[in-house]
Amino acid sequence: MKFTILTAFPDSFTSYFSSSIIKQAQNKNLVNIELINFRREKGHKIDDYAYGGKTGMVLKIEPIVECLKTNNLLNHSIILLSPSGKPLTQQMARDLAKQEHIVMLCGHYEGIDARIQKYVTHEVSIGDYLLTSGELAAMVILDCVTRLIPGVINQQSLETESFDEYLLDYPVYTRPPSFEGQDVPEIYLSGNHGEIEKFRKQEQERITKERRPDLWKKYLKYKETNTKTE
Amino acid sequence: MKFTILTAFPDSFTSYFSSSIIKQAQNKNLVNIELINFRREKGHKIDDYAYGGKTGMVLKIEPIVECLKTNNLLNHSIILLSPSGKPLTQQMARDLAKQEHIVMLCGHYEGIDARIQKYVTHEVSIGDYLLTSGELAAMVILDCVTRLIPGVINQQSLETESFDEYLLDYPVYTRPPSFEGQDVPEIYLSGNHGEIEKFRKQEQERITKERRPDLWKKYLKYKETNTKTE
Repeated sequence: MKFTILTAFPDSFTSYFSSSIIKQAQNKNLVNIELINFRREKGHKIDDYAYGGKTGMVLKIEPIVECLKTNNLLNHSIILLSPSGKPLTQQMARDLAKQEHIVMLCGHYEGIDARIQKYVTHEVSIGDYLLTSGELAAMVILDCVTRLIPGVINQQSLETESFDEYLLDYPVYTRPPSFEGQDVPEIYLSGNHGEIEKFRKQEQERITKERRPDLWKKYLKYKETNTKTE
Repeated sequence: MKFTILTAFPDSFTSYFSSSIIKQAQNKNLVNIELINFRREKGHKIDDYAYGGKTGMVLKIEPIVECLKTNNLLNHSIILLSPSGKPLTQQMARDLAKQEHIVMLCGHYEGIDARIQKYVTHEVSIGDYLLTSGELAAMVILDCVTRLIPGVINQQSLETESFDEYLLDYPVYTRPPSFEGQDVPEIYLSGNHGEIEKFRKQEQERITKERRPDLWKKYLKYKETNTKTE
């Protein structure tokens, strides 16, 4: 799978993409990451004042569209990273992981001239908060999608995980069995895998209900529909 | 403001923290970022198999608690980054920006031994999706909080922005006034600031209603209460 990232700050990605799982995925040729600077050279003017007197600079549309054209990217999936976009979910990441080539446009300052929307296929937000730049949002999407590509992480790790059926994950434990007065739940030491699975599911339900009533409602609805259609 | 990040992958942060606004904020001494590796030396065992047969490795509690103790961090705000945490919002970022020192713990693999919860003050998620690591989530929180620290970005840019009153931001435009058949809305060229402000608010409402019915509902409720209490 190929990611092409259009950015005015390509250097900001280097160390994250050179570490841990993203590095391994590139070494195994499972992902190919291309960073393109739409600031063609030092001094190339890529931003300008916003019309209508908003403070802050806006990224101009011309350098970005020119860059998309020069690199023959206009017929691909093009994601604009923006807090006004569709919120990223695990299901959206699964859908994106099926694509062969994803292009991402990183805003900066007050954002990109809104006319860019005509050229993009998706507008995605990583959450209801503001960042100094789209660069970090691009890293989040790339990371989230890359870990779903077959071969990148252990396939069994993907089988049951958070947000499957809208449930949060169960707590995990490792050695030692006792640490500063806290013990690992006894059932985990029992070796009874059937009981462990049952306990884990109960824990997922308890934690989701307690912490995320919004997900809990979706889970109940999903469970009901699922049962009815079976 | 100081951020201390406990991680097994300190190198993954370097280039993001050396670029653009985060770099400037450090240069102006507005933020101080400390990265601590809880893997004390090469070969120091920091992970182990999960109890109960889940695939994948779990970060052990001992090296992390030892690291918190050695660095006198136990009395600070300690954020555990986890998909089961409270979802990050702009309001949460505003609250965090008032603190003097924030400690963040980055999970990796299947996460940190759940007994760590006794030592943390906040458990935060950046969204309903899974990442290969907590490192990226720590960057997101640091970035989101740092831009709210007075002096980091233009104060006027903070005055009206996305998620204030639950509304998404209005579209921004810059020169040229016409590009490949798309024109900047005429009102922006009028110079009538009162009308521009009114148009922008209408645009915020239209976009939020269209794209995010969940935020729109919260906005209507907020508007109603606000009116009642005035």
